[in-house]
Amino acid sequence: MDLQGVRASYSNYLKTREISTEPRGLYTPINYIMNLGGKHIRATFLLLAYGLFQNEISDIAQQSAYAVELFHNFSLVHDDIMDEANTRRGKPSVHSQYGVNSGILSGDAMLILVYEELLKIKDANKRLKILSLFTQTAKEVCEGQQYDIDFESREDVSIEDYLLMIKLKTAVLLACSLQVGAILGGASDDDAQKLYDFGVNIGISFQVQDDLLDTYGEQARVGKMIGGDIQQKKKTILYLTTLQHMEAGSENFKDLYNSDLDIEKKLPQVRAMMDNCQIQEKMNTLKQLYLDKALVSLHGVNSQNKAGLRELEALANFIVSRVQ
Amino acid sequence: MDLQGVRASYSNYLKTREISTEPRGLYTPINYIMNLGGKHIRATFLLLAYGLFQNEISDIAQQSAYAVELFHNFSLVHDDIMDEANTRRGKPSVHSQYGVNSGILSGDAMLILVYEELLKIKDANKRLKILSLFTQTAKEVCEGQQYDIDFESREDVSIEDYLLMIKLKTAVLLACSLQVGAILGGASDDDAQKLYDFGVNIGISFQVQDDLLDTYGEQARVGKMIGGDIQQKKKTILYLTTLQHMEAGSENFKDLYNSDLDIEKKLPQVRAMMDNCQIQEKMNTLKQLYLDKALVSLHGVNSQNKAGLRELEALANFIVSRVQ
Repeated sequence: MDLQGVRASYSNYLKTREISTEPRGLYTPINYIMNLGGKHIRATFLLLAYGLFQNEISDIAQQSAYAVELFHNFSLVHDDIMDEANTRRGKPSVHSQYGVNSGILSGDAMLILVYEELLKIKDANKRLKILSLFTQTAKEVCEGQQYDIDFESREDVSIEDYLLMIKLKTAVLLACSLQVGAILGGASDDDAQKLYDFGVNIGISFQVQDDLLDTYGEQARVGKMIGGDIQQKKKTILYLTTLQHMEAGSENFKDLYNSDLDIEKKLPQVRAMMDNCQIQEKMNTLKQLYLDKALVSLHGVNSQNKAGLRELEALANFIVSRVQ
Repeated sequence: MDLQGVRASYSNYLKTREISTEPRGLYTPINYIMNLGGKHIRATFLLLAYGLFQNEISDIAQQSAYAVELFHNFSLVHDDIMDEANTRRGKPSVHSQYGVNSGILSGDAMLILVYEELLKIKDANKRLKILSLFTQTAKEVCEGQQYDIDFESREDVSIEDYLLMIKLKTAVLLACSLQVGAILGGASDDDAQKLYDFGVNIGISFQVQDDLLDTYGEQARVGKMIGGDIQQKKKTILYLTTLQHMEAGSENFKDLYNSDLDIEKKLPQVRAMMDNCQIQEKMNTLKQLYLDKALVSLHGVNSQNKAGLRELEALANFIVSRVQ
């Protein structure tokens, strides 16, 4: 099944998963965020990885794809509360729509529902591997979020620190999704690990692109406010790399970046200083570096499904250069 | 091992579980709440149930006891945010001490750590049973919390609705703890179920006592503000039963209860109207009803450890009449 087929198949499956049990106050916000659109990248990766080892998508693969999307959306719901982000995918975020308490509690329920889904895996060996992998990943995602928060008030964040943070916060879940698909599909441990490594490197590249879009994207396409990171003084890879490459004026840049200047004024000034460092070119080089690493892992995977491998490569290329 | 021995053994074990890994901002709040005292009722129940079927407490029993305490404390951390409760066990609640965002994120990590602990169970059959039971329980606890929130703005809450809510919010976790102990100890399915039923009924009785303490307790002993439920206009079992039994003046009582009157003035007035209904006597009768049901289940459990059964009975008696 090709990329479009996989995506369509997951979208159809998703429609069957609306939760209709009581209490409505708990489950309505879950249905809301799960059906708010989004690219379903994690589900797609999982199903494509599965398809490298199986001809047909099974129910348990779809359920597990739904589970990783549940987890991803759980983390968005809670992160949006922490970041006081009022929009998500161009719509009100969960806590804007239903209140902070609903965001907290429905998020908690989503995390529990992930386990409910994964416990449906019948094969005991695969189930244990996947539950262990997911639990480790979920913990790392929380750690990544904590580092992200910590970095806001730390002055000594290095590019290395930042890369570890985005690995934990973003990349490991992509990697986990791919490995879950591989395990379910019956891949060897070696192939499952290579798909994990592919995912980690794509994930880092993905997050660099995310940082780029937050500063240089088109608001209408990205679906959230441009300049949010700058407004929040987040030490993004753009900020850290600009600082590292400035020959002079780095104190001015720091002062500007950490000021409470109105974002309409702050954004163009920050961009101008970043442009002077050719930040977009540097970020594109960095993305390519991680993409190359990712593809080395992918090319080492033993699968007869050559078309499937090409689809994964195409998706990887797409998401590191996406405009939304 | 007797009750004191079990409690001491868990307290000693708890000291070995301080989390010292990075990032500190994520794990310090977890260590804080896990070491804030508390009665460790769920851990104690789990270990006593385990002791009905095994002579010595094992590491995996202690780990699982720690896991249910982690879950209980996770729910306290998130509930305290939702309820804007600033104290817990006489000390600052987690979000008062570390901020709301830390409360949300560290709570999330605690929920994940529960699974990390339970995944350590080596016996595949017991592990699956316990993971499934725990997941179902955790979902029910969220549902109970949602009903509790819903009831605040609903006028048509019945005593039956209330009893379902506290069953979900409080009782099922006590029941789950007992059943986990039984499963780990190698109990038959029937005995494990009887211990679950014992826990549900004790849990309901426990929550009735909790409501009583919130209105009639001594602040210094309870460790939190007396009258919190009344201040928040919570439809507790005291409120619902008083309403049901008032022959006249129920509109006055409703108006008073739902007023924003200062709690120093509101509490004695509400108490006086509840006293007129002999609410404390009625609640004691209700607690006894559930305690009796609980003991019928407990007495049906097949265990050679008669002293252990007596300890469970004594603990049940204690917690439904506790003063803190």
